[in-house]
Amino acid sequence: MPSDDPRGSERDIARALIADTRVARLATVNPGLGVDVVPVTFALLDGGEDAPERIVTAVDHKPKSTTRLRRIRNISEHPDVTVLIDHYENDWERLWWVRLRGRARIEAAGPVFEEAVDVLVDRYEQYERHRPVGPAIVIAVEEWTTWQARP
Amino acid sequence: MPSDDPRGSERDIARALIADTRVARLATVNPGLGVDVVPVTFALLDGGEDAPERIVTAVDHKPKSTTRLRRIRNISEHPDVTVLIDHYENDWERLWWVRLRGRARIEAAGPVFEEAVDVLVDRYEQYERHRPVGPAIVIAVEEWTTWQARP
Repeated sequence: MPSDDPRGSERDIARALIADTRVARLATVNPGLGVDVVPVTFALLDGGEDAPERIVTAVDHKPKSTTRLRRIRNISEHPDVTVLIDHYENDWERLWWVRLRGRARIEAAGPVFEEAVDVLVDRYEQYERHRPVGPAIVIAVEEWTTWQARP
Repeated sequence: MPSDDPRGSERDIARALIADTRVARLATVNPGLGVDVVPVTFALLDGGEDAPERIVTAVDHKPKSTTRLRRIRNISEHPDVTVLIDHYENDWERLWWVRLRGRARIEAAGPVFEEAVDVLVDRYEQYERHRPVGPAIVIAVEEWTTWQARP
């Protein structure tokens, strides 16, 4: 993508900001209660020539309470999700956030599931001993938005 | 509230967990796009005898872009919101999150607005020089949920 493409620039700034951040928050529509939001691990999967980048997360090995699986039910009914990755510190001149909107798919097996889990295991040493069992949530990113207190 | 009241216990655990945390994420329903989620400063306001506790946040002095005010529009149309306060670190045995669900009201002036801004200024030294201009979002908490990796 040419560097003077504003969408490309926004995406590149966002990618640089989130590279070292280990936690995101995934917001989904809960048809009964309004909105759910949970902290998640995440990784990026590059898109193809005509395919968008994807952000992936997975249900890991921890006991899966009702709460932890609710995001899966929510996405099945309403696949439009929002992911927030932000930085907080006491110096408010250094705050930033990146917001991704996209369409989520649940992948419980197959090559896309395996690719998603592989990039998560690559990114988090904690997964080396306990590979996430899944399912994975694979979000095709449709909109990148960044905000920085001091650009 | 008696200490053997399970709702009281959950709330007390949650209050202890979030006491030293400075940032929350506020999720709102966006009628057009699904869900929005933004990082926010927050403080608790005690409830009365029959009134629930409230969690408050405010639009502060920074330039108010469309994005920053969208939460206000969302709440006007759909007041049921979810607030997530969580802790992340590399030792996943120490993870926790607290989720609050409640009904939000926009307060742009008057005693509730002033009370909300006062508790925010008390909690954040950054607001001492720049008192938030508002409006404030005041959320009557209807549900406290806590999760800890190692209770």
